[in-house]
Amino acid sequence: MPYVNIYLIEGRTVEQKREMADKITNVVSKVGKVPKELVHILFIDLPKTNISKGGTLQSDK
Amino acid sequence: MPYVNIYLIEGRTVEQKREMADKITNVVSKVGKVPKELVHILFIDLPKTNISKGGTLQSDK
Amino acid sequence: MPYVNIYLIEGRTVEQKREMADKITNVVSKVGKVPKELVHILFIDLPKTNISKGGTLQSDK
Amino acid sequence: MPYVNIYLIEGRTVEQKREMADKITNVVSKVGKVPKELVHILFIDLPKTNISKGGTLQSDK
Amino acid sequence: MPYVNIYLIEGRTVEQKREMADKITNVVSKVGKVPKELVHILFIDLPKTNISKGGTLQSDK
Amino acid sequence: MPYVNIYLIEGRTVEQKREMADKITNVVSKVGKVPKELVHILFIDLPKTNISKGGTLQSDK
Repeated sequence: MPYVNIYLIEGRTVEQKREMADKITNVVSKVGKVPKELVHILFIDLPKTNISKGGTLQSDK
Repeated sequence: MPYVNIYLIEGRTVEQKREMADKITNVVSKVGKVPKELVHILFIDLPKTNISKGGTLQSDK
Repeated sequence: MPYVNIYLIEGRTVEQKREMADKITNVVSKVGKVPKELVHILFIDLPKTNISKGGTLQSDK
Repeated sequence: MPYVNIYLIEGRTVEQKREMADKITNVVSKVGKVPKELVHILFIDLPKTNISKGGTLQSDK
Repeated sequence: MPYVNIYLIEGRTVEQKREMADKITNVVSKVGKVPKELVHILFIDLPKTNISKGGTLQSDK
Repeated sequence: MPYVNIYLIEGRTVEQKREMADKITNVVSKVGKVPKELVHILFIDLPKTNISKGGTLQSDK
């Protein structure tokens, strides 16, 4: 605790995930006043065909 | 807002996702009285080995 | 299967959830070609202080 | 209902998922006093690059 | 890792959650071959008005 | 997209959520190279009785 689930469009690099994980952990730890070790993050990658906004798939835009 | 996450068995086509996204967005928009543009949908595809009902995997049925 | 999770701002009525559940189940059943009985929906209500878009809480708008 | 979502590191075998599904369904059914048939479980597999603890990706450990 | 999210109908007691947490952690640890300390479980309680199966709210059954 | 779900122990203030939302949105926007307006965050508050680590509820620690 806290647990963070991040849904992303496929294609983000490991470097981007590494940087997001590091920085988001710092924010949650500092603002939430919990040790960094307790901050867990999961990235769930999704193809553009699996994301819709306003009724239109991302792959159709 | 609203955000809709739909867990599906792998194998649904893009056409099926497109039609579901369009129609579910219309329902949520009309019934919830929010602009369509604010309705977000994610599809999470899962293999049959990753779904269990009553203690039995879908792949064993 | 399929499983649908819908995150909503607090305050939608039971009538609205009933109508959404009925209509979304019909869409998923018809388009996905699964019996209605297999369509499960969960509504997760969230206060405006717990939703952010573009870095701003809904309660601050 | 109940619905159980389990996020796992990629690489667990179907045998492991089968055994987990069977045993967790039994626990939830007995303790929760619901028929086994109503217990649904989804496994979401994630690569080590998509999991962070304490700000460090599992793939970097 | 692993992370387990359990959606339950409101009304389960703390004793039931304690027993489920203990037993599910044991199952996941033994079958998944991970230390118990790495098994995390979240319970999300939902009212009967927020759960639909086959298009009908639990509160209407 | 991206969508961020954060599970927190109950009791964080609106100020803490506001600051987390602002800073996490900035991180995701900059590292992920997406406009801030596309970053959505949901906070799900959970009581200590609903969180288990290593088989023990947070409320029992």
